[in-house]
Amino acid sequence: MKAIGIVMGSKSDLPIVQKAMNTLKELGIPYEVHILSAHRTPGETAEFAQQCRGRGFGAIIAAAGMAAHLAGAIAANTTLPVIGLPCTGPCLEGLDALLSTVQMPSGIPVATVSINGGVNAAILAAQILAVDDAELAHKLVDHRTTMAEKVLDQNMELQRELNLR
Amino acid sequence: MKAIGIVMGSKSDLPIVQKAMNTLKELGIPYEVHILSAHRTPGETAEFAQQCRGRGFGAIIAAAGMAAHLAGAIAANTTLPVIGLPCTGPCLEGLDALLSTVQMPSGIPVATVSINGGVNAAILAAQILAVDDAELAHKLVDHRTTMAEKVLDQNMELQRELNLR
Amino acid sequence: MKAIGIVMGSKSDLPIVQKAMNTLKELGIPYEVHILSAHRTPGETAEFAQQCRGRGFGAIIAAAGMAAHLAGAIAANTTLPVIGLPCTGPCLEGLDALLSTVQMPSGIPVATVSINGGVNAAILAAQILAVDDAELAHKLVDHRTTMAEKVLDQNMELQRELNLR
Amino acid sequence: MKAIGIVMGSKSDLPIVQKAMNTLKELGIPYEVHILSAHRTPGETAEFAQQCRGRGFGAIIAAAGMAAHLAGAIAANTTLPVIGLPCTGPCLEGLDALLSTVQMPSGIPVATVSINGGVNAAILAAQILAVDDAELAHKLVDHRTTMAEKVLDQNMELQRELNLR
Amino acid sequence: MKAIGIVMGSKSDLPIVQKAMNTLKELGIPYEVHILSAHRTPGETAEFAQQCRGRGFGAIIAAAGMAAHLAGAIAANTTLPVIGLPCTGPCLEGLDALLSTVQMPSGIPVATVSINGGVNAAILAAQILAVDDAELAHKLVDHRTTMAEKVLDQNMELQRELNLR
Amino acid sequence: MKAIGIVMGSKSDLPIVQKAMNTLKELGIPYEVHILSAHRTPGETAEFAQQCRGRGFGAIIAAAGMAAHLAGAIAANTTLPVIGLPCTGPCLEGLDALLSTVQMPSGIPVATVSINGGVNAAILAAQILAVDDAELAHKLVDHRTTMAEKVLDQNMELQRELNLR
Amino acid sequence: MKAIGIVMGSKSDLPIVQKAMNTLKELGIPYEVHILSAHRTPGETAEFAQQCRGRGFGAIIAAAGMAAHLAGAIAANTTLPVIGLPCTGPCLEGLDALLSTVQMPSGIPVATVSINGGVNAAILAAQILAVDDAELAHKLVDHRTTMAEKVLDQNMELQRELNLR
Amino acid sequence: MKAIGIVMGSKSDLPIVQKAMNTLKELGIPYEVHILSAHRTPGETAEFAQQCRGRGFGAIIAAAGMAAHLAGAIAANTTLPVIGLPCTGPCLEGLDALLSTVQMPSGIPVATVSINGGVNAAILAAQILAVDDAELAHKLVDHRTTMAEKVLDQNMELQRELNLR
Repeated sequence: MKAIGIVMGSKSDLPIVQKAMNTLKELGIPYEVHILSAHRTPGETAEFAQQCRGRGFGAIIAAAGMAAHLAGAIAANTTLPVIGLPCTGPCLEGLDALLSTVQMPSGIPVATVSINGGVNAAILAAQILAVDDAELAHKLVDHRTTMAEKVLDQNMELQRELNLR
Repeated sequence: MKAIGIVMGSKSDLPIVQKAMNTLKELGIPYEVHILSAHRTPGETAEFAQQCRGRGFGAIIAAAGMAAHLAGAIAANTTLPVIGLPCTGPCLEGLDALLSTVQMPSGIPVATVSINGGVNAAILAAQILAVDDAELAHKLVDHRTTMAEKVLDQNMELQRELNLR
Repeated sequence: MKAIGIVMGSKSDLPIVQKAMNTLKELGIPYEVHILSAHRTPGETAEFAQQCRGRGFGAIIAAAGMAAHLAGAIAANTTLPVIGLPCTGPCLEGLDALLSTVQMPSGIPVATVSINGGVNAAILAAQILAVDDAELAHKLVDHRTTMAEKVLDQNMELQRELNLR
Repeated sequence: MKAIGIVMGSKSDLPIVQKAMNTLKELGIPYEVHILSAHRTPGETAEFAQQCRGRGFGAIIAAAGMAAHLAGAIAANTTLPVIGLPCTGPCLEGLDALLSTVQMPSGIPVATVSINGGVNAAILAAQILAVDDAELAHKLVDHRTTMAEKVLDQNMELQRELNLR
Repeated sequence: MKAIGIVMGSKSDLPIVQKAMNTLKELGIPYEVHILSAHRTPGETAEFAQQCRGRGFGAIIAAAGMAAHLAGAIAANTTLPVIGLPCTGPCLEGLDALLSTVQMPSGIPVATVSINGGVNAAILAAQILAVDDAELAHKLVDHRTTMAEKVLDQNMELQRELNLR
Repeated sequence: MKAIGIVMGSKSDLPIVQKAMNTLKELGIPYEVHILSAHRTPGETAEFAQQCRGRGFGAIIAAAGMAAHLAGAIAANTTLPVIGLPCTGPCLEGLDALLSTVQMPSGIPVATVSINGGVNAAILAAQILAVDDAELAHKLVDHRTTMAEKVLDQNMELQRELNLR
Repeated sequence: MKAIGIVMGSKSDLPIVQKAMNTLKELGIPYEVHILSAHRTPGETAEFAQQCRGRGFGAIIAAAGMAAHLAGAIAANTTLPVIGLPCTGPCLEGLDALLSTVQMPSGIPVATVSINGGVNAAILAAQILAVDDAELAHKLVDHRTTMAEKVLDQNMELQRELNLR
Repeated sequence: MKAIGIVMGSKSDLPIVQKAMNTLKELGIPYEVHILSAHRTPGETAEFAQQCRGRGFGAIIAAAGMAAHLAGAIAANTTLPVIGLPCTGPCLEGLDALLSTVQMPSGIPVATVSINGGVNAAILAAQILAVDDAELAHKLVDHRTTMAEKVLDQNMELQRELNLR
């Protein structure tokens, strides 16, 4: 199976990224995680992106906040799918990161997920790998079923609680 | 090669979708296009989504405006990667469609591209198929090179124009 | 009297929904509450919506946050009035939920109330039931009178406080 | 059958209101239309609202732009369901009208539909009347079916067009 | 001297209103404060507004949050200057209150001050009274001078602090 | 009667300002109009503001777009009431001008009216002058009555039109 | 005198950039203009940025729209001052470009000017060069004086026009 | 070496300004800091701006919140580069300060940095001084290298942590 490359622009994004790591682990998908900054280490970022297909990655998750250029900087240097994970910064509620990540110019897409959506970035990465991997696709269906069951269980528990009142 | 399923919420989204179709054609990727509404034809939309892995699609592009639920409604019914293409409506400059498409709850991602970004939706779809398809990956590199050359040519032309002034 | 169906997209919306439940109880209106997710349990959500007229509901309240599709998903599967109750999520101050709920396409309305407005969702549901129910209409007038009196009492208390300073 | 009262804050809102009128007519629902301003004719607006239950209305549609207080001013003076129809003004893309209409304080809801959503306001009004009117409920189901068929027809036409290319 | 009428839509706005009260007191301007709701006590609000010129007020300050209609409802019922004081509510950072207060239709202005700007509402009220009151105008100049001196003093203190480091 | 000083930041704001001029003329209020820029002619702007009480003005209307500092710059140099008239610029729909005008710091208010609200700026200026001018107050009541009659006339005309269809 | 490097992300930004070129020409400041894309030609963009101090530039102007990363990508590769010129794209009124340009992470600033502010980008570049260039500083003072005189002339012309009416 | 002038609109902005001071100190750049208000001390602000080239400043940093006019007021009175540092206030997440600072009219630029970006304001000031100062330019390169090394070190530390898990 191909691995997923995860990059974050700053160590402060780790709590969000950790959710992606946990989800990938749960699904048995190998991954690497790196701190790389589009602005502070632009050369290393470009180099990482250029090597990522050759190193066996199937998709890259890039988490960043504010003028979140990291996903775009990776996408500019690879033709692998790049998943943009906008993170909230100290103000503007993540709107700056969302627009900086999603509004890419024609020809260089970034597959943007919800603000702080670490789990969703990982699931999307898994969905991409699962296009040609029936076993992983099966795991995703199971994961989906588990989520649905959790909702239905919560609903049944709620009904019990309401009956007891 | 797997095909790409394209759905749009309303026929008025066709000009945006046409850009995606043109790009897929250029890259030699087969596709189907359907008009399906998350709200007017919810059953058909769910059924389409549930069948799309079985019908050989590798990814789904869903274009919609306003409270753009189409991508989310597809994503709720398949574990294939779903690419959300938010379209501008009569007001709010597409912000409603962007937020309705990208802000998906944990566990059900939509890979959102830029507002009205039909080309980007198609390129992302191609990148997903190219993860395990070296020939398509090569085409994407060529496409990228052509884009870069076009920028460099425009720059050279600009230099000539400026010298002539 | 018809009952009100209440659905919430996640158990985390319960504090908002509880306000709606309390208000309905105060007005003597029967209700059911369910956790149902437009994205995690799309089939159950559609099924619930399709059955809700037959099960004797007069209106449905749907509470959800982020890309809040729940009200729209219910509205797509019933012609009962659907009241959308947008809830604040971890960022964007509820603007994503508001736009995802209210900006419905032509033909499938969602009756949207204020962000986190659990009481208002319940009052609106009661107003809908009261169109043909003089007794409930009378209760709503009483409720309104009580609210007005509370404002006037607060004002009198304020006058006393100010006089004492 | 009860009638629907429609009020608009300014004659310039008539094109939006006309869509509501057409839809009500199609569904065979009687209506009255008035120009009434929350700010220019506050007394007449309050008086209209206070009389509307007695005059046999089942719901009120209030269309207004900018600091759109009309729906709120009606809602403050009746316990009938009030449907707020925010209209775009000369700037801000209708965001001012939307927030002024939907963000009502606890206890006095306005059932807000999409910006400029004249059809949706009428359908919501019809849904409210149809709670206790099986014949109208049936008409709404037919209307829904017609909409769905139109989408499916458009899709079939699109397939033919694509095959001919 | 004419008095200033202050109204607030809810007792929760009192901390903001208190700042206005303190400022008016400092300037020796008489005032009355009332809790009045545009939506919960519309009749009392209109009546208050209609009487306020006759009761000797020179201007009205109206503080409210969310779909803040209070200032507009007062302005619709008097030709006295009405000062709108938008207050932050539980979400949207006061943007809803600001737009609902300031975006009044042509002919019925509300003199809107900054969000939560209780002091500014009072100063503006004083400036209005001071147009024809040389003594009050003098006090306002003094107040301005005091503010300026406070800034200059803070600056001198800062210089001392920086020198000591 | 005191006069109203009107300043605009750029000649391009004249169409908005013209509406204020027309309204003042209608009400028989004398005015002066000047083009003055907070940024291009800061000294002249400050000087104008400092002289405006002495020159017999009762209030100043300041119209500007983008980072609309003109009203604030005038307000910083006079204790007369300053009415801020935010104008739409080439982008952002006037939101930049609105926030730059209304969000003044504590102690220096600007009485902000609706975006492009030339008429409202003039009416507010008239309301300020009318606090101590019974004749002008009477004119404002007449103006209000005329507006109300126009709405009622439009409504009657609408009823006739609807009856004729 | 050092030259100014101007880069734009797409040829469509030329009308905005032309305003910067005209202003630099007027001030007698040499410049180069290039089309370079942060996403389509990332290597060339980085290389250009790395060379720009050595090639004798004193500052770089970078114009781009949407997820406008160009200024940031230049700034990441040089310690020269980089002036960000956000351009409006097909939607969102330039808000995406503004936030993507200005919200740079700590340590890598972009000196952002107003949306579409080509003249301002050039003036800021000139101000930077003029810090140690008394002649250019003098030209900037003259330019400022000319602007002020134009405002004062427009004002005098306006007075004449108003007198003639 | 020229010094940097720093002004803040209120003492409450000191924590943001302190970050700028620390950075300038680190780089060995002399600076002065003053509290000056565009609205409370307009004369002193203008005077300061007019003198700042003569007093040997190379650039001015102006920090302010809300309707942040301070940078613009300085820029209106000098042709030195003025760096605008928008600060978050009690609401609107700094959007008001950002737009008030950056959206300057044609001819009078403000070099705006990120909201609360004290470090960035200082680095930009240093970059401006370094255009003609090779030693300072060298320090900026060192500062950049240190930042890059810190990112790379954090990344190596992260790898170690991940290996230990």
